[in-house]
Amino acid sequence: MAGDKKLVEAITSMEDDFAQWYTDIVKKAELMAYSSVKGFMILKPAGYAIWEAIQKQLDKRFKDTGVENVYMPLMIPESLLEKEKDHVEGFAPEVAWVTKGGLDPLAENLCVRPTSETLFCDFYSKEIESYRDLPKVYNQWCSVVRWEKETRPFLRSREFLWQEGHTAHATYEEAQERTLQMLNLYAEFAEEVLAIPVIKGQKTEKEKFAGAEATYTIEALMHDGKALQSGTSHNFGDGFARAFGIQYTDKDNNLQYVNQTSWGVTTRMIGAVIMVHGDNEGLVLPPRIAPVQVCIIPVQQQKEGVLDKCREVENALKEAGISVKTDDSDKSPGWKFSEAEMRGIPVRIEIGPRDLEENACVLVRRDTRDKIKTGLNGVVNEVKNLLDTIQTDMFNRAKAHRDQNTFEARDYEAFKDTIENKPGFVKAMWCGDMACEDKIKEETTATSRCMPFEQESISDVCVCCGKPAKKLVYWGKAY
Amino acid sequence: MAGDKKLVEAITSMEDDFAQWYTDIVKKAELMAYSSVKGFMILKPAGYAIWEAIQKQLDKRFKDTGVENVYMPLMIPESLLEKEKDHVEGFAPEVAWVTKGGLDPLAENLCVRPTSETLFCDFYSKEIESYRDLPKVYNQWCSVVRWEKETRPFLRSREFLWQEGHTAHATYEEAQERTLQMLNLYAEFAEEVLAIPVIKGQKTEKEKFAGAEATYTIEALMHDGKALQSGTSHNFGDGFARAFGIQYTDKDNNLQYVNQTSWGVTTRMIGAVIMVHGDNEGLVLPPRIAPVQVCIIPVQQQKEGVLDKCREVENALKEAGISVKTDDSDKSPGWKFSEAEMRGIPVRIEIGPRDLEENACVLVRRDTRDKIKTGLNGVVNEVKNLLDTIQTDMFNRAKAHRDQNTFEARDYEAFKDTIENKPGFVKAMWCGDMACEDKIKEETTATSRCMPFEQESISDVCVCCGKPAKKLVYWGKAY
Repeated sequence: MAGDKKLVEAITSMEDDFAQWYTDIVKKAELMAYSSVKGFMILKPAGYAIWEAIQKQLDKRFKDTGVENVYMPLMIPESLLEKEKDHVEGFAPEVAWVTKGGLDPLAENLCVRPTSETLFCDFYSKEIESYRDLPKVYNQWCSVVRWEKETRPFLRSREFLWQEGHTAHATYEEAQERTLQMLNLYAEFAEEVLAIPVIKGQKTEKEKFAGAEATYTIEALMHDGKALQSGTSHNFGDGFARAFGIQYTDKDNNLQYVNQTSWGVTTRMIGAVIMVHGDNEGLVLPPRIAPVQVCIIPVQQQKEGVLDKCREVENALKEAGISVKTDDSDKSPGWKFSEAEMRGIPVRIEIGPRDLEENACVLVRRDTRDKIKTGLNGVVNEVKNLLDTIQTDMFNRAKAHRDQNTFEARDYEAFKDTIENKPGFVKAMWCGDMACEDKIKEETTATSRCMPFEQESISDVCVCCGKPAKKLVYWGKAY
Repeated sequence: MAGDKKLVEAITSMEDDFAQWYTDIVKKAELMAYSSVKGFMILKPAGYAIWEAIQKQLDKRFKDTGVENVYMPLMIPESLLEKEKDHVEGFAPEVAWVTKGGLDPLAENLCVRPTSETLFCDFYSKEIESYRDLPKVYNQWCSVVRWEKETRPFLRSREFLWQEGHTAHATYEEAQERTLQMLNLYAEFAEEVLAIPVIKGQKTEKEKFAGAEATYTIEALMHDGKALQSGTSHNFGDGFARAFGIQYTDKDNNLQYVNQTSWGVTTRMIGAVIMVHGDNEGLVLPPRIAPVQVCIIPVQQQKEGVLDKCREVENALKEAGISVKTDDSDKSPGWKFSEAEMRGIPVRIEIGPRDLEENACVLVRRDTRDKIKTGLNGVVNEVKNLLDTIQTDMFNRAKAHRDQNTFEARDYEAFKDTIENKPGFVKAMWCGDMACEDKIKEETTATSRCMPFEQESISDVCVCCGKPAKKLVYWGKAY
């Protein structure tokens, strides 16, 4: 059947053109569409369902650590944005300004939130009076706007969905503990749910968040060897508290400034899932994040008993808590196979007349495309185990790929050669001087991804200037 | 203890000043706070948790009818907003305009979405080609902005949270079916979950949505006798489709315009819950929407075994799927009682040393404040049944109040007298002429709430002009 291969044939292979392959998947798996508003995207049902799965599982993990959800205004008065000097310098060039409300010009311009530190600070300055009011551990799920010049689906757009946590604590130590707790939570979520291995570490001064004392990050490696910053957590110390006057009375009746943190992940995570796990047949979704985990496809569905058996298996899987759909449309089985593969559904079950005779069915793994013939009596357990196996295997393959594409460089020539010819992370020592970071970025386009928590000493000197080394840094070209 | 009554004493009684009572509850139950951005509110944890409970249950009901969630851009280009004449006339006076992105003025102004019909239409015009692409049954959860002059928590603010469903169908009949399906879904949700009885009906031409062919509504009566429009569903016919060129090829290869609907409910529903069920002790939450359903309060918690027993009951209730918290803070029991009442927690359980001896505890209903002594062995079933009873009783009380405050008027003098002196709905016949609606609104401030689906004939003539009557209408002063 000529039509059957259409979905697949339209994909560029990732070896030929990774960027085009990515765009093709986003389009063909129906995750996102371009809107008529420049730089703004539309999340289609298949894409939004992944975000819902991320939201649901992250939100539960948040709440288990005491996080409470709130909702803050969409807009920030100019005077509020300007209160913290570093923060406004970082964000003012890339915000959208509302200057007119109804038919009248506004007395004060409002920017559409690019992030909400200033709103939370303003709120906390009114809410917090005593040590009894601490800690505040609030989060919101919303969209933010940043006026990016170049945009790419999920990776960079003028509006994106995210969560932003903002906390206030009595002490610096408690703020630091929360900062790292949330970074670890992100790392566990990325590895356990998204099957994406991450490097945990601290950003350099050059790369840290505008207004933060310290920024921590999880960094993932995409299939093409480029890095993707996948989540960040910031310790603000009392910098914002001093700018906004957020003080509390401690147990000894002394006025103290609070210490604050913020942390966030975005729809970018969906881009990471595509670029870590996808292949030339389309999207490959880890079972724990797949809105549909199993797709049942009848073969010769007009034959007596075939559709009935499909429904029977569907109901048995549903009862076991597995998300499953039967494709009983009038498309050919071959077309349905391609479509299920393009959409990344982890397991496909084929049931035809011959299977009925044998009381069996065929399971097909999306990740390896392996086929497994199995008896219908034990199919629920078989599928459950297979989903677990796929989840584990996908993580292990991504980790092997990451490890195979992580290199070391001990001098600048080797560094430049590796960055140029071997896409991946480069581990190299650094003196701590921003001038070396600047030089490396200018000459290679690579940036410092992080100073990993797991430090090693692979040389005594900075890979760039040869002065004594202070830190091991992961470098890479990044999205 | 003097401090114990503080939370309660600060509330104005609803008989003295209903508006102030409402504002007091919003503040004292910690549902919402005013922000520094004029007309924008902050949803605090207790308020946002109610919205989450609404979202979760509504979203499930939506998905059971085939709805899929998506996310559309926050901003609408001016040219897109202007495509449907009635729609832009309705909304242009109350939108916020973004005129600057980053450091540069925009080539075309963007309005922050007040509602997203135009964006969905633009999207559908590109997505829909054939009858095979229909129906589209999409929804989004988001915030919208309308530049209101006067604002009140939950009822009217410049930004609010809502869901907006937007569907496209092959025929007018199918669109009409979806329009009414969603109105019925809203009505069932309001009655079954929020315990709020509603009148289902159609809006008059004067009151319908800008751009709709027909608008349907659910109308609820608040404790003070004012009406609150609590959810709407619109049939657009092919009006938007013609303005945006949304066409499909039917089975006979003819080009046809689609027929569309939209439907939405907002955080206003929380305002309705407050004003239908609240009392002079604070908020009263129906069990099915209460983020915390049961609050366990130890009496003499320092006495041996008291806190242990509280935990034991807490765990048993949790295992039964009940949302429960034990208040083991160092406040006095009296303070905790007041606080739990203020926050509207449906059931309070008191456990003290004497209860331990008797292997019993005291359940206190928030709605009636009745106390029930019960054995600890059967406490889980007792609480489960009590929550069901409370839910039913709250609905029945609200319905009795609504029915007692629904009046009939057969001539204009009686109508004006009732509207003036008996806060509530007034049922009266109407000739169908907008001039009568205008006159009634001008002279009494009452508006037509809806033409109920359950029509009766209580007189042959229009209550206003005396000409032959066409419809029974519910009238009322409204929020």
